[in-house]
Parts: sequence; C-alpha cells; structure tokens
Amino acid sequence: MSRSEETAVDADSVADAVAAFARGEPVLIHDAADREGETDLVYPAGAVSPDAVARMRNDAGGLVCVALSDRVAEALELPFMQEVLDHPTAADHDLAYDERSSFSLTVNHRDTFTGITDDDRSLTIRELAAVAADPAPDAFSDAFRSPGHVHLLRAAPDGLADREGHTELALALAAAADQPEAAVVCEMLDDETGAALPPAAARAYADREGLVYVEGASLLERFD
Amino acid sequence: MSRSEETAVDADSVADAVAAFARGEPVLIHDAADREGETDLVYPAGAVSPDAVARMRNDAGGLVCVALSDRVAEALELPFMQEVLDHPTAADHDLAYDERSSFSLTVNHRDTFTGITDDDRSLTIRELAAVAADPAPDAFSDAFRSPGHVHLLRAAPDGLADREGHTELALALAAAADQPEAAVVCEMLDDETGAALPPAAARAYADREGLVYVEGASLLERFD
Repeated sequence: MSRSEETAVDADSVADAVAAFARGEPVLIHDAADREGETDLVYPAGAVSPDAVARMRNDAGGLVCVALSDRVAEALELPFMQEVLDHPTAADHDLAYDERSSFSLTVNHRDTFTGITDDDRSLTIRELAAVAADPAPDAFSDAFRSPGHVHLLRAAPDGLADREGHTELALALAAAADQPEAAVVCEMLDDETGAALPPAAARAYADREGLVYVEGASLLERFD
Repeated sequence: MSRSEETAVDADSVADAVAAFARGEPVLIHDAADREGETDLVYPAGAVSPDAVARMRNDAGGLVCVALSDRVAEALELPFMQEVLDHPTAADHDLAYDERSSFSLTVNHRDTFTGITDDDRSLTIRELAAVAADPAPDAFSDAFRSPGHVHLLRAAPDGLADREGHTELALALAAAADQPEAAVVCEMLDDETGAALPPAAARAYADREGLVYVEGASLLERFD
C-alpha cells in the first residue's frame, strides 16, 4: 500500500468513527504502540445502555471509566485523585507510559442501589453525560455520591495538545460528533496472554461486530 | 427438608468453603436477600493468578477489589475514601444497603505497566497478600502507587460483628483458612437482566465449575 492510500484509509476510519459516535455507537481506539499499546472500547456516555455495560465487561474487561473534559471537570470541581491523596503511595507516581494518570473521583448516581449492576452503571454514565452537557456543581452533588463504581477521568487542560491518552482521544471524538464532553473508555484485554488485546485482534473483533476501529495516530492527524 | 438437615447442609458448605480457601480456590458468597442481594466471586488474594483475574472479569463482571482487615488497613494507614474526599459528592453518603461503603484507595503494584491487564492486576493482588502477611507502611508505599486499577476495601474494625458485607465475610473466610488478611471480591452480574446474578444462577455456576457456594447467613452462624 502506498503512503497516500494509507492516509486515505486512515481519514476514512476517522470519518467513520465520528459518524458512529454521532449515532451513539461504540468505537475501538488503539492509542499507540509506544504508549499504553492498548485498544479501548469507547462510547459517547449519553448512549450507554445496560447492554453496552455488559458488552464492556464481557468483551473488553477493563475498568469502566468516564472521561470528562477539563472544562467540565473544572466546573464540577473534580480533582486529580493523585492530588487529593495524602498518602505515601500517591507521593511518587512513576508511570512508564505517561507523566500522570487521569483518575479523578469514583461516583455512583444516587438513584443506583449497589452501583455495580449494568442497570446501575448505565444510569450513572448516562446521567454524567447530562451533567457534562450543562455542568453545575450543585446539580452534580445532588445527583451523585462518591466513592462509587464508575471511575471519572479528567482530561488534560489542552486535550490532545497536552496528552495523547484514550481520555483525550475519546473526548476529541465526542467533540467532533457534537456529543457532550463525556465519553466512556474500557480497556480491551486478552484472555489468552494476560496482556492487552493486540491491535490485530481488536481490529478483528471490530470487523466481527460491525464496529469502527481507529488508530490514535489517525485521530491525532485529524484533531491535534 | 427438615430444619436440622438445612443446618447440616449449611455447616458443610462453610467447611467446604474454608477448605477451598485454604487450597487457594475461589468461593461464591451470597450476602443476604435483604442487603445487597449479591453473590461475589471471592479468592484468597495470595492465590490470584492471571487466569483468576480473567475468570473474575469474564464470569463475574464486577469491580475487582481487595478486602483488607482493619488491622492491616490501620498498619498501612489506609483511610476510607469517603473520609479523604473534600468534595460535595462525598458529604452525604445515602447508601440503601448499609451505613457506609468500604472503599479505600485504588492501587497498582509499581512493577505493573498500565495496571489493568490480567498479568498486572494479579501481580498487584498477590503482592497485596504479601504485604497483608507482614504489614509495614514503608514496604507498602515502596511497592505500590495510588491511584491504580485495584480497589482496596477496608473492613469494619470488629469485622462481622460490625458489618455483614462481602468485605467482612471474605476476611472471616480467609482467617478461618489461615490465609493472610487479604481477599479479592468481585460481584457476579447477570447478562440478561442488567441486575445482580440471582442466587440460583450463582449456585448453578458454582456447580458447573466445581466451586463452593455459601450463604452469608451460614458464614455468620459459624463466625460471628
């Protein structure tokens, strides 16, 4: 394949990913071989049904996290968890793949029961999309309790210009698809090897399920 | 079945559960219909292999959490997360099934890469068992970073006398089986209904997989 053909294919996959997100469908995003080397199953938060949560835990297997933009996180006064913790384990954060993790609070919607079922987590996630569309601190604390069973991730202030993680990639996709600034990300894991699902296997899963697979590099080319 | 036969069956299941835990095998524990109404897949933390993590995410589907006794949590200076958070969502914790959640920090072992793969989570979990066997704050913060991908749960100070959750039930089992005071708990979820897996289905899974299923009430009768 020539370089121009590769670029054409990549541009197509970005357009397909934006269209899928606009329809409320999931997309698979591989970050980069020299970063986490991980493919995440990603949804616009407002479209997450109980079946979508079941797909995440059955087919992906990682943590079910909701990425929020810096603007939304700032409005909701959401800190980075590492900055909140006054514990020696949080003092030295020696990540191999980035300078910092995006973890903020964990939350449950107050109308959940245990918080962990597919019904409960999908309610929490959809209501986070509603808050992201109109972020007000009082409405947020009226509706959500912390700690809970859904991890909030706080994006870097300048998005992809700052950090090229799944958090920022997913939010760039949400913005392009005119979705609220809230996207669910869940890591695809490999049952056979104990490692992250390799890109080829993630691509095969996407083909099998009729989903879009896109490389982080393609998203960066389009959005950065 | 007469009342005495029921009691005999229950005592057997407790003995079987202790024996399974002593061998490093998982056990299914249903708390109570009038509490969470949830069955957790539970392991002694020291026995958790990558395959065990894969079983938890594929067959259970909830959060992968490590319950630590109050004694160990105290030695490691592990707070309840709700007490750490200075955020309005943490101010009013209106749980329907108990007075408080057990959530403490989330952690990764420092030798993990992303922290989420089966290899990474099993390393984190096994090393938590090693720390629980000899809890020293410096060794803990040398070996673990926070936040991470494994949730720590802090048991109530007086265990089952204080609180009858999976956290305390699992630790009672670990103590009876002479295991370190660290047990992994993961909620069994139902693909069909979006709710917790009903006890009958959890029991059927246990039978199919050759695992022990035990009622929280039976554990309470034996250990409380």
